[in-house]
Order: sequence, then structure tokens, then C-alpha cells
Amino acid sequence: MSEATLPRRLTILGSTGSIGRSVLDVVRSLPDRFDVRALAARANWRELAGQVREFSPKVVALFDTTAAEELRTHLAGEPVEVLAGEEGVVRVAEHGESDMVVSAIVGSAGLAPTLAAVRAQKSIALANKETIVMAGELVMREAAKRGVEILPVDSEHSAIWQAMSAGKPEEIARVIITGSGGPFRGLSSEELAHVTPEQALNHPTWQMGPKVTIDSATLMNKALEVIEARLLFGLDVEQIEVLIHPESIVHSLVEFVDGSVVAQMSTPDMRGPIQYALTWPDRFECPAPRLRLSEVGELHFERPDVGRFPAVELGFEAARRGGTAPAALSAANEVAVGTFLDGKLRFTDIASVAAEVMKGHRFVERPTLDDVLEADRNARAAAAKLTAQRGI
Amino acid sequence: MSEATLPRRLTILGSTGSIGRSVLDVVRSLPDRFDVRALAARANWRELAGQVREFSPKVVALFDTTAAEELRTHLAGEPVEVLAGEEGVVRVAEHGESDMVVSAIVGSAGLAPTLAAVRAQKSIALANKETIVMAGELVMREAAKRGVEILPVDSEHSAIWQAMSAGKPEEIARVIITGSGGPFRGLSSEELAHVTPEQALNHPTWQMGPKVTIDSATLMNKALEVIEARLLFGLDVEQIEVLIHPESIVHSLVEFVDGSVVAQMSTPDMRGPIQYALTWPDRFECPAPRLRLSEVGELHFERPDVGRFPAVELGFEAARRGGTAPAALSAANEVAVGTFLDGKLRFTDIASVAAEVMKGHRFVERPTLDDVLEADRNARAAAAKLTAQRGI
Repeated sequence: MSEATLPRRLTILGSTGSIGRSVLDVVRSLPDRFDVRALAARANWRELAGQVREFSPKVVALFDTTAAEELRTHLAGEPVEVLAGEEGVVRVAEHGESDMVVSAIVGSAGLAPTLAAVRAQKSIALANKETIVMAGELVMREAAKRGVEILPVDSEHSAIWQAMSAGKPEEIARVIITGSGGPFRGLSSEELAHVTPEQALNHPTWQMGPKVTIDSATLMNKALEVIEARLLFGLDVEQIEVLIHPESIVHSLVEFVDGSVVAQMSTPDMRGPIQYALTWPDRFECPAPRLRLSEVGELHFERPDVGRFPAVELGFEAARRGGTAPAALSAANEVAVGTFLDGKLRFTDIASVAAEVMKGHRFVERPTLDDVLEADRNARAAAAKLTAQRGI
Repeated sequence: MSEATLPRRLTILGSTGSIGRSVLDVVRSLPDRFDVRALAARANWRELAGQVREFSPKVVALFDTTAAEELRTHLAGEPVEVLAGEEGVVRVAEHGESDMVVSAIVGSAGLAPTLAAVRAQKSIALANKETIVMAGELVMREAAKRGVEILPVDSEHSAIWQAMSAGKPEEIARVIITGSGGPFRGLSSEELAHVTPEQALNHPTWQMGPKVTIDSATLMNKALEVIEARLLFGLDVEQIEVLIHPESIVHSLVEFVDGSVVAQMSTPDMRGPIQYALTWPDRFECPAPRLRLSEVGELHFERPDVGRFPAVELGFEAARRGGTAPAALSAANEVAVGTFLDGKLRFTDIASVAAEVMKGHRFVERPTLDDVLEADRNARAAAAKLTAQRGI
């Protein structure tokens, strides 16, 4: 996409989720810079209807076909095409009038539409971790082949991306991914076993959806980010570290070969990294509150405790093995998190279920998309079986 | 200077001082990258003789003519030209075989040689604050006219320079200069009045020469850095802030218009910023110890207390007034610091002498070099008179 293409024509996949709403906030604050052409969501047709009225996209889609039917009835007569199902969402992702697709669908459902957008040569503002975690090598290869830019939206990867500009890619010694440590950083293993979904959903610094909030509490989000960072930035696993930083002010750091460490900071507000991906290579005023370090006063840093939070190590292991290992880890985690949120699995069993599924899965070193999807399905089935056995 | 010009041919002005020694350490650790062609120092002929034997420069100079005579005798028969006095140092600065001049002479004595190097179209690695503080507009204009790069060596300005690469110059909202707060950050005004030179010379994090160490204790170093940052980076005074950060890990920060704050960090070791200036636009391995944030554990930030440390405000005032105000401030401070180090002035009178001299000096808005040098001389005389009156 050329620098001059403004207003940028946007497609937002996952527009009613936490990231999707923040994307629309950014659009509201820079109305001349963006033109929303297409939207997709899972099932929340009422909110999507409101977004249609406010942003006048040409086409929208809902994964849930019943919800799509409701929306169609509700918007009858409006100048918008309403599509349904995965096929509808994929068609939205490929929509010809957009320059950039914001991939903000949560979980593995984001993979197919994001890959479709890459193949349709859209710039990708990527918030969906699973696209890279499940099929990173494939997606990055397809993107490179088509000259498609994959721009991270995640605060950590956005920070790495911004900090990287202080040197050349080959001058990077290490990338240090920070994480708040989640709400249970101070709990013992015994206490962790009795954590409830309600407690886990109460994240100290970031406002996020439930799946991502639980991943943040188990530190599985860091595991997925390690896998993602390796692929997005072409790093070796040994170049990546995870650092716990409870204030969530320093979003990640890049250490160069000369020992200079460049960090990106801001108040924890997703509108910052979202806007950066959407307006890059330019920067504009942003409604997120300004950072005042003298008011924050102190920043803390510590190593993650892999004994109490084994998920981090699973991420390094999956990144090292590559192939279908990350897909198996991510799928098993998604099932385990769902079961935990239903009150049917202990918090500490999320990581152990994911570990066991990854360990036992049929590993393919150079997977096709079908291999990845099969690994995903098998891991889900294996995780469902395991969670049923361990369930409370 | 082109990127390909390696080994870089160096002239080091102030080679026996704290910065000069660190420059030579960097040269030692990257022997294939640098070729030392010329050296200059104030009076330490014994150390300079050792540097001549180790680095084989073509020409050296000492400000002190008696010391230069000693050196000449000592090096009789060696293939090196020994020059003397300010004229000798200026000739070293202009030396035809060098690509880059490291300006590391402390105090106003650095101005003339640095300006000579700019006029001889050398790239300047600038550690001497006074060059920019006294005659910044003039020097920057001369540098721009000749396409000469002025690369900061100071850890704070190096940090700003590195952090700036994450955006465009016009996207910078604020520059935040950090400072350790010096060894007396916790003292009351009453206690500050009784600080001795010995206490003041004991800096908590940086190893520096005596003048710079006292400036760091009064926070006058931040005052001078504010003036310097404005000129080096073309900022408005209102875009600059000073932030106290006792650990000296975050060397400065740049806030962009979108609220993204990019910071440069490292262990407090001058070899990092020195090497960056010397090898830019490349980065190479550096002998300075690596930063481990998990071992540092905590970083603290607070506003400077302008009541107890009035020097910071003097910097903003001088930067706002421009013209000869910074030269008067810097010269008066240099005299006051010298008198304090001789045990003949109270610590708290350093800033008040500097303030009074700056306030009373004959202000010239658009000074020539002669105006600047006159302001410097007059401020020194006025400061000498004042310190004699207030002396202990």
C-alpha cells in the first residue's frame, strides 16, 4: 500500500469484539483518514447493525447464519449486502474495495478469512494471533510472494516493530516480550488451582475479550506471542525472551548487538497500537491517554515463574519444534480455556491439557494448510477428551 | 561521510579525559573499524605519550605548551608531529587525514577546535556540550551549510537520536531527557548548602570527570542538555521535559504525536553511546555490560524538584531566551563549579551565581562568534566577582 493512499479503505473482521470496537474508535477519531468498506462479526447482529448505520460499509457478514438472517431482516432496504457463514466472512475479507483488512476475529476462526485477505493482496493489520500461530510459515510465505504487508496490532508486536526501526534487522540481538503477569502473578500453585473464571476475567491493566483475558492469566498469551514474534520478525527462538512487567507500560523491547535496548511505551490502551498499524508509516494524534512516567512513578520487571506458569515454556517448545506443534498447542488451549470458562476445568489444568495434547499430537514438520487444520481438529478432540476426564 | 568508509579515520580532541579514554576503549574493541590519526589533550603528556605508542597517530597536540615541550622531548625520534597551544589543537581538529572528529574536550575550550573541525568538513561526534550551548545556532548553521553531520555522544542525546528513528521529525510531540538526579536527590535545601566537593564527586551511576560530575549533582547538566537538545534536534523549548530517573537505565525518551513513547536504555556505560556515534549507521558488538531488566528489577521516575535544584529551570530560561543567554549561563557555571571544587563556594551558590550572571549579562539576540566569546569572558569575570563575594 502506498503512503499516499489516504483515506485508507478498511475491512474489519471481528468488528464487534474488543479489538474491533477499538478499531472503530480509531476510525471515529480520524474520520478523514479512513473509509470503512466491509465488516464481519461472529453473531452480534444488533451491534453490527449499529456499525452499519454509523460507518455505511458496502458489505457485512456474520459467521452465525441465524444471526445473519436477523440482520438481513433488520437492515432490509439499506444499501448494504449481508452475507452469512464462513464463506460470507471470507468474501468480506476479499472485498475488492478495501486496501487493508484488520484481522481481529478471535481464535482459529480467523485463519481462513485472513489467508483469503492475504491472497487478495490486502495489507493485513493483524490482531488475530492464531493466523500466525497455526499457519505462520504458510501465511508469511504467501504474504511475501504477493508483496503483502503483515502489520502487527498486538501491543507487544507493535512495540517490537516500532523499536526495530532504531537499527537494521540483522543488528537485532534479542527481542524481549513483556507481559503483565496476569492477575495471579502473586498466587501459589495451590491457590492457582482454585482460581475461578470470574477472578480470571478481571485483568489488572488491559480491557480484553474473555479468551484473551484467560490467556493473559495463564501466560499462554506470551507463549503464543513468542511463536508469533519468531515468524513475524524472522527471529530464532533463542533470540526471544519473556519478561514480566506488571504495569504494562513498556510493551516490549529490542536489544541490538551493541547492547542498546530500545523500548516502546504508552498507557495500556489498544487504540495506540491499532492506530499505528492503520496509519503506518505515518503517525497522527490518538485519543488514548498520554503516558506520564512521573505519575506512574515505578516500573517493575521480573522473570516469569515457569513453575507456576508453565504455559510460557510451552510456547518456546512449540516455537522450537515448529510444524504443527503451535497449531496443536493453540487449539488445545482454546478448548481448555472454553471448558475453564464454563466452570468445568481447573485453571492450572489449562496449561497441562495443552501440554499433553501438544506432546501426543501427530507431528508434521512441513504442514500444508490441510495438515494444520487436521492438527487443529485432532487437538480439539484430544483436548475435549482430556478436559472431560479432568473436569470438575 | 559515506556508510562504506570503514575503517573510519578518527581525530580525538580530549583523548586523556573520561570520554576520550572510553573512545579509545571502543577503538580497542573494534580495531579493524577505526584508525586513530590525530589526538589532542589539555596537559597530561604522559598519558598522551602512551596513547601515541598504542595508536600511532600522525599528529598530536597539547593545550599546555610546557606539557607539549615535555611530550616533544619524550617522543623525540618517533614518527609523530607534536603541536602546542590552542592553535595546535585547532590544527589537530582540522587534520586532513581524518573523516570524523570526536569532540571531547571539557568546557568552553572545546568550542574553537570543534568549529574548526566543522569548517574542515569533518563529521563530528560531539561530547563537548559547550560547543552547542555557547554557539549552537552558529555551529548548526555552519554544519548545515557544509553538509556536516553532528552526532551526539552524550548518553541522553544519543538516546533521543536513536529513539527518533521510530517516527518522522515532525511527528515528535515531546522529548524527555532523563537524569539520575545526582547524589543529593534526597537532601533538603539546608543539607545541600553544606555539601562538600568530595561528596559531590561521588556520582551514583556514571563515572565522569569532575566538572561534569558537579553539573550532574546540581542538575546543571540537565540545563545544558535542554539547550543542546533544542538546537541539535530543532525542537521548541516547550517540547522538552526533564525527568529524574535515579537508575540511569533509560537514557531519554521521545513521545510521538500518537502518544507512543520510544525509549533507549542500556547499562550506564559511556562506551555504548560513544560507539553508536562512531559506527553509525551501523551497530557492532560492544564491550559494555548488557542490560538485564529482571536483575535491575525496578525503574523509578519523578519530576525534578526545581525548588532544591533551580539549575534545571535556568536551562529552560536560557533555551527560551537564546542568543548569548546560554553562553553566559554555561560560563558562569564553569567558574562557579571551579570555585566550589576549590572549596571556596557553597554547593547551592553554584546555581544562584549562574542565575545572577545570566540575568545581568549584556544580552545579544543574534550573536556572532565574537559576541559569544565576549559574553563568555564577561560572564566569567562577573562570576569570579560574585563567587569572591559569596565565598566561604
